[in-house]
Amino acid sequence: MLIVQKYGGTSVADPERIRNVARRVARTQNQGHHVVVVVSAMAGETNKLVDLVGKVSEGKNLREYDVVVSTGEQVTIGLMALALESLGLRAVSFLGFQVPIITDRSYSKARIARIKTHALKKALGEGIIPVVAGFQGIEDEGDVTTLGRGGSDTTAVALAAALKADKCEVYSDVEGIYTTDPNICSEARLLDRISYEEMLEMASLGANVLQVRSVELAMRWRVPLVARSSFSDAPGTLITEEEKVSMKQSKGATNLESASVSGVTYDKSESKITVVRVPDRPGIAAKLFTSLSEAAINVDMIVQNVSTEGFTDLTFTVARTDLKRALEHVGRVAKEIGAEEVRSDENIAKVSIVGSGMRSHAGVASLMFRTLAKEGINIMMISTSEIKISCVIETKYTELAVRVLHEVFGLGKKKK
Amino acid sequence: MLIVQKYGGTSVADPERIRNVARRVARTQNQGHHVVVVVSAMAGETNKLVDLVGKVSEGKNLREYDVVVSTGEQVTIGLMALALESLGLRAVSFLGFQVPIITDRSYSKARIARIKTHALKKALGEGIIPVVAGFQGIEDEGDVTTLGRGGSDTTAVALAAALKADKCEVYSDVEGIYTTDPNICSEARLLDRISYEEMLEMASLGANVLQVRSVELAMRWRVPLVARSSFSDAPGTLITEEEKVSMKQSKGATNLESASVSGVTYDKSESKITVVRVPDRPGIAAKLFTSLSEAAINVDMIVQNVSTEGFTDLTFTVARTDLKRALEHVGRVAKEIGAEEVRSDENIAKVSIVGSGMRSHAGVASLMFRTLAKEGINIMMISTSEIKISCVIETKYTELAVRVLHEVFGLGKKKK
Repeated sequence: MLIVQKYGGTSVADPERIRNVARRVARTQNQGHHVVVVVSAMAGETNKLVDLVGKVSEGKNLREYDVVVSTGEQVTIGLMALALESLGLRAVSFLGFQVPIITDRSYSKARIARIKTHALKKALGEGIIPVVAGFQGIEDEGDVTTLGRGGSDTTAVALAAALKADKCEVYSDVEGIYTTDPNICSEARLLDRISYEEMLEMASLGANVLQVRSVELAMRWRVPLVARSSFSDAPGTLITEEEKVSMKQSKGATNLESASVSGVTYDKSESKITVVRVPDRPGIAAKLFTSLSEAAINVDMIVQNVSTEGFTDLTFTVARTDLKRALEHVGRVAKEIGAEEVRSDENIAKVSIVGSGMRSHAGVASLMFRTLAKEGINIMMISTSEIKISCVIETKYTELAVRVLHEVFGLGKKKK
Repeated sequence: MLIVQKYGGTSVADPERIRNVARRVARTQNQGHHVVVVVSAMAGETNKLVDLVGKVSEGKNLREYDVVVSTGEQVTIGLMALALESLGLRAVSFLGFQVPIITDRSYSKARIARIKTHALKKALGEGIIPVVAGFQGIEDEGDVTTLGRGGSDTTAVALAAALKADKCEVYSDVEGIYTTDPNICSEARLLDRISYEEMLEMASLGANVLQVRSVELAMRWRVPLVARSSFSDAPGTLITEEEKVSMKQSKGATNLESASVSGVTYDKSESKITVVRVPDRPGIAAKLFTSLSEAAINVDMIVQNVSTEGFTDLTFTVARTDLKRALEHVGRVAKEIGAEEVRSDENIAKVSIVGSGMRSHAGVASLMFRTLAKEGINIMMISTSEIKISCVIETKYTELAVRVLHEVFGLGKKKK
């Protein structure tokens, strides 16, 4: 097999951990696989570099920002190649321009345009382990670019796609993807498998494990992704196509719930805004959300009640950090359209259940609502997609809601 | 004028100092000059990187060593370009591969083969200040190389030569080249001018100011070099062709001594080895020094007394750190050639006077010997070159010898 292994900042945080990773790479090679290694900067280094930039200027010149912040990965590839050679393996480091990984010219958030695989394939053919700098690329005129924070995951997946690798393993200090946050639910269970789509909906759970963008890329190119820990031998979570997930799941699944829901997520970072008694005319909502979008304020959930006497209430959520700015815009538009008033509430949380299986199981939503009701938890907003149902509730009930939903959908460790 | 300005590690040690350098570059540009900036890594950074390499492996793979240690300069060029832009100037950073500065393949001690100046000239033509990473280059196959410690000075001089710059200013935390070490002689005076040849002989005085290799390169390409401080406005020392130095000097010089000697240097890092009663046959010295050279032990001064009854004493100095190894080799060879015994002495210092002018002044050497004798300082070895006379004396007399020689040759501050 050809395996791309990506090691994150905590996995290469110091020389000892780098040697530990080298031993892991060696084991993989000894099992008869070809390995391409992708590394991040040592934990904390990129932040240090960003701080330096901030101390020298306002950092508006992103070309130079990229020159500075891309050095973290350069240090790690050299050290990793040295550590691999110390174990008697052959390894060669590759900077973005040496692969080359060619990106567009959007400094600090560049997108990969194409990857030339000739040099990597030549190295692999000679039994050499290529150690590629994550996060960085080169644009057509020879400037260094970076892919944005967490971009090393994207580098790894893009390399796996370009090389047609059998899988891409992303190593961090977390064992994989859990059914929910183990910090608030002791029954949280590590998932063996999960579909790309579910993973994307559960982004908040995987925030420290996999970048959303890399999952999207993996989905697009059908690259099997594995999220696992460099500090243990646990196999981690395989993120793959839905068919392959359900095939596996159906073996052990014996009831409605376990077949349909893969995880429970929550988000306490949003606030709710309600525009009361909006005249129910075409174009009103468009006007409101255009104003927010022009101010670069992202709106998450939107709920509009059915109209009564030609008026309706419009409720939506925004990031709490955007609330103040959002209220300024909404207040102005509300006046223009003749709404009665604007209310806001910071005391909310969004709890979601995610699962590809729920598409074909009508009872999932009602089980969720009933379960919350039984605990006396009031649902303020509901939003549904094909594989996700979200409810906005009072913040204080977040943990309780997560635990009861986790249990009722059979996600706990004791699941048969 | 086109000026290449090189700023060393202490001059760019932190964001505040980087901004200070940016202001200095801005002033130079405002005076109507074109400027190319070359920077070192921030003080301490390269050592940190070398330490990291040592902790991961024995560091025998110099290709990867170069990948790691070249990042220090990359950080500084980005920060410097940003600092310059903050002042409203236009600046663009250049990595070794972006200039490109093409070197041979001798990782960690690469030599510059050629510099393509097209991109730099284009930038200069557009009013842009190129900020070039010192110390690093790229070899023909695209590998990153470094030029060896202190290589940024070499980068700057090589760029000045390639661009036919009017001068190359090398900034450090020292005001320039002194007539001797100010730490042991309070009368030490900053030199206005000095010839390349003298500068090379006074390498020990300039150790923290200019790399020997960069002086050699400047001499070869006739690049006027200026050693000055980034922390003051003092004009520094101009290192240039001998004719230009003597022209200037002859104006103020009124006596033999001041015309002939530019500086007094000392070196306490050597030890002396004497092979006693060596049969005075051809090939004996060759045998001895070949053995040392094969062991990569550098020999500095060599003195052989005139032969008495077919025997001679052979005395030479080596770096004290090499003494033990040298004695092993010398001991073996001494046995083979039938020498009587091998003695060594670590308690020595070398004191030298340097000056282009002494070529034409026969009295310089005897004045040196007389001066030392007057202080009761015994001379153990003497070695002379066209522009330098060195005496080996007991270590404890070093400071005294430097002071009296500095005075007798009229180098003090009060010189008219």
